[in-house]
Amino acid sequence: MAVVKVIELVGDSPNSWEDAVQNACREAARTVRNITGVEVLNWTGNVGPDGRIDEYKANVQVAFRVDEHRS
Amino acid sequence: MAVVKVIELVGDSPNSWEDAVQNACREAARTVRNITGVEVLNWTGNVGPDGRIDEYKANVQVAFRVDEHRS
Amino acid sequence: MAVVKVIELVGDSPNSWEDAVQNACREAARTVRNITGVEVLNWTGNVGPDGRIDEYKANVQVAFRVDEHRS
Amino acid sequence: MAVVKVIELVGDSPNSWEDAVQNACREAARTVRNITGVEVLNWTGNVGPDGRIDEYKANVQVAFRVDEHRS
Amino acid sequence: MAVVKVIELVGDSPNSWEDAVQNACREAARTVRNITGVEVLNWTGNVGPDGRIDEYKANVQVAFRVDEHRS
Amino acid sequence: MAVVKVIELVGDSPNSWEDAVQNACREAARTVRNITGVEVLNWTGNVGPDGRIDEYKANVQVAFRVDEHRS
Amino acid sequence: MAVVKVIELVGDSPNSWEDAVQNACREAARTVRNITGVEVLNWTGNVGPDGRIDEYKANVQVAFRVDEHRS
Amino acid sequence: MAVVKVIELVGDSPNSWEDAVQNACREAARTVRNITGVEVLNWTGNVGPDGRIDEYKANVQVAFRVDEHRS
Amino acid sequence: MAVVKVIELVGDSPNSWEDAVQNACREAARTVRNITGVEVLNWTGNVGPDGRIDEYKANVQVAFRVDEHRS
Amino acid sequence: MAVVKVIELVGDSPNSWEDAVQNACREAARTVRNITGVEVLNWTGNVGPDGRIDEYKANVQVAFRVDEHRS
Amino acid sequence: MAVVKVIELVGDSPNSWEDAVQNACREAARTVRNITGVEVLNWTGNVGPDGRIDEYKANVQVAFRVDEHRS
Amino acid sequence: MAVVKVIELVGDSPNSWEDAVQNACREAARTVRNITGVEVLNWTGNVGPDGRIDEYKANVQVAFRVDEHRS
Repeated sequence: MAVVKVIELVGDSPNSWEDAVQNACREAARTVRNITGVEVLNWTGNVGPDGRIDEYKANVQVAFRVDEHRS
Repeated sequence: MAVVKVIELVGDSPNSWEDAVQNACREAARTVRNITGVEVLNWTGNVGPDGRIDEYKANVQVAFRVDEHRS
Repeated sequence: MAVVKVIELVGDSPNSWEDAVQNACREAARTVRNITGVEVLNWTGNVGPDGRIDEYKANVQVAFRVDEHRS
Repeated sequence: MAVVKVIELVGDSPNSWEDAVQNACREAARTVRNITGVEVLNWTGNVGPDGRIDEYKANVQVAFRVDEHRS
Repeated sequence: MAVVKVIELVGDSPNSWEDAVQNACREAARTVRNITGVEVLNWTGNVGPDGRIDEYKANVQVAFRVDEHRS
Repeated sequence: MAVVKVIELVGDSPNSWEDAVQNACREAARTVRNITGVEVLNWTGNVGPDGRIDEYKANVQVAFRVDEHRS
Repeated sequence: MAVVKVIELVGDSPNSWEDAVQNACREAARTVRNITGVEVLNWTGNVGPDGRIDEYKANVQVAFRVDEHRS
Repeated sequence: MAVVKVIELVGDSPNSWEDAVQNACREAARTVRNITGVEVLNWTGNVGPDGRIDEYKANVQVAFRVDEHRS
Repeated sequence: MAVVKVIELVGDSPNSWEDAVQNACREAARTVRNITGVEVLNWTGNVGPDGRIDEYKANVQVAFRVDEHRS
Repeated sequence: MAVVKVIELVGDSPNSWEDAVQNACREAARTVRNITGVEVLNWTGNVGPDGRIDEYKANVQVAFRVDEHRS
Repeated sequence: MAVVKVIELVGDSPNSWEDAVQNACREAARTVRNITGVEVLNWTGNVGPDGRIDEYKANVQVAFRVDEHRS
Repeated sequence: MAVVKVIELVGDSPNSWEDAVQNACREAARTVRNITGVEVLNWTGNVGPDGRIDEYKANVQVAFRVDEHRS
């Protein structure tokens, strides 16, 4: 039996949306073990006056196993 | 880089829906720092036999920064 | 065993959205007993030419127990 | 025949969510005529460090008639 | 005033979907007190080559009171 | 021509979710004739302190023919 | 103050989807007064072996005023 | 590169839902060029006391190219 | 036991949306047997410069029985 | 690289919803290989005059690998 | 008080989805000032006969402040 | 008249989400002709213990014309 817990984070990056998701996963890995997967809920961005996207942001859910050792 | 975490709470109040949301945010502020925002997911209420709303309840998501100090 | 029935109403009020929901619940209490709760599905309003909201409207679901006495 | 146009706005207020919706409708009334109604899509807020909501925000759709005079 | 917190888990079981939800609730009860309710968000399963479901999985939200003792 | 009406109920049972849906259908059959079908909208449950589900609840829509005899 | 009640019906017709909606509204008018509007939730149909649609069906919500006479 | 803009309108007609959508598109064509397509978001109608639909209404999104000439 | 399979198609017609759905069903009947029903997921259309709808399109799901003969 | 295809089926059973899902998966396994998982989209049922559920039905998506052998 | 307006656009690009979103924002910046953010609603693409994506398209909402100067 | 069929696939790639979508389209092009477009339904990924995304996955719908040659 392996119960998984799901937490929601918002990652951001000045470079790309993939990088924003990666940052959210990396941050999650600092505080929880046994991460298994990520799902993107929403893509947003901050936009400067000239229309250039200067901050990529992604709402994600990160899943991690919580009770691997218990049968 | 500023990763944000999102938690879900249900606040309640005998007075109003705005108060219910405020109670949820105040409770969150007791246990987490750097709260940035709130989004209301759902408005419900308990209703007495005479049809009077005697408890206002609100499902909310509260967002807070988790890693401000790390570049 | 307590089966609950759910009906949908639209309440309105010239004063506020909370009052509109309260009116819907009060009207429901005129025709059904054992009301337990209310959930707001949608908030709308009529707006006058100057942009002032002159009628607050709320689509709600009202729940009430229908068979309390039967085990 | 009366065709209606729908625009989306985000209103805000330091006081309440109803006030935030009212501000959005008032702003719309500055630039368009024949406003008929408003629908709230989403309620959010900015929250200070102590958990107090210091800015109420509402995504709304405002509808207005565009061709009343044409049969 | 009773604020409730909501966490998301994925339970699994080789036996049935109800058992998968029960496992998620039991795991939650190991780490949090005052659990009040569960809502199922999604039912999935792993399927073997012969089409037999060999793992029942359920995404659930578990709610628990966080501040019962405070008025 | 056969017009069908749809009502919403919440059934519950201490035994299982299927039993909860069955209770809602049985209750509907006490007050309406020509029931044709049921659709489950939502599965929830009450959970005791030890994480055991002690009440299974299901929001359902029940459909029944209202005017079979009229061509 | 005018509270509106909303009921859900499924109309059908061998001729067209508009006729199916019209049949549902006509059936509603047999049992309730002060109907104000209809909203279509879903369009389905029965299809014969040759691919011809032989029954048009529409899930609709019909709204009617319930308390006109009360201020 | 061809950026498309999307506006939302509500068309109406005493005759049919297709006519209501057509009226919304025709109205859009009065004020914008390069219309490419329409999507129906919602079908509603006004209903008279006898249950007859006397006004067909359709929420639509109309898309039109805004910058065809720019590479 | 009768398992049903569901496929998704987009039908189109220069005449009407009902015709577009009918075309999708007729096309499905060319390649599969035992069609039972159709559900419309989405209504769109191509629009000419004058705002006239010149192509009606409908996303539909068509259902057909796949294993009638097996108990 | 492993691309997965997703098909939609409706399984049914006179016994239970789990059995209905199992029947859909078993039927899928008759015509496709490398099935990996199932997701339930919707639970419905046929109901007899006495309110007893006499047919359990489940809309499901079944996923299967289509190109395992290609890197 | 700062009311924000939201418009919907579809950007495209032969290179990538991020570029498609950037093109939509750049086009918006040609006609409106004070752009604050973008949200992606939908990712689609045109695909050539060999399966190669030859046009990346993104439905986006762009938000911009409309009345900053008015208190 | 051109009827379009829609199939659902899950593509994956160790490199990027765009590559995952491209792989799904390329796999579709192996078995069907006249592909016209792709829509992304969902972005997920497998994540290693260090939080690095090691597999990008995308649920997509691929559309292709099925009856071009028939008027």
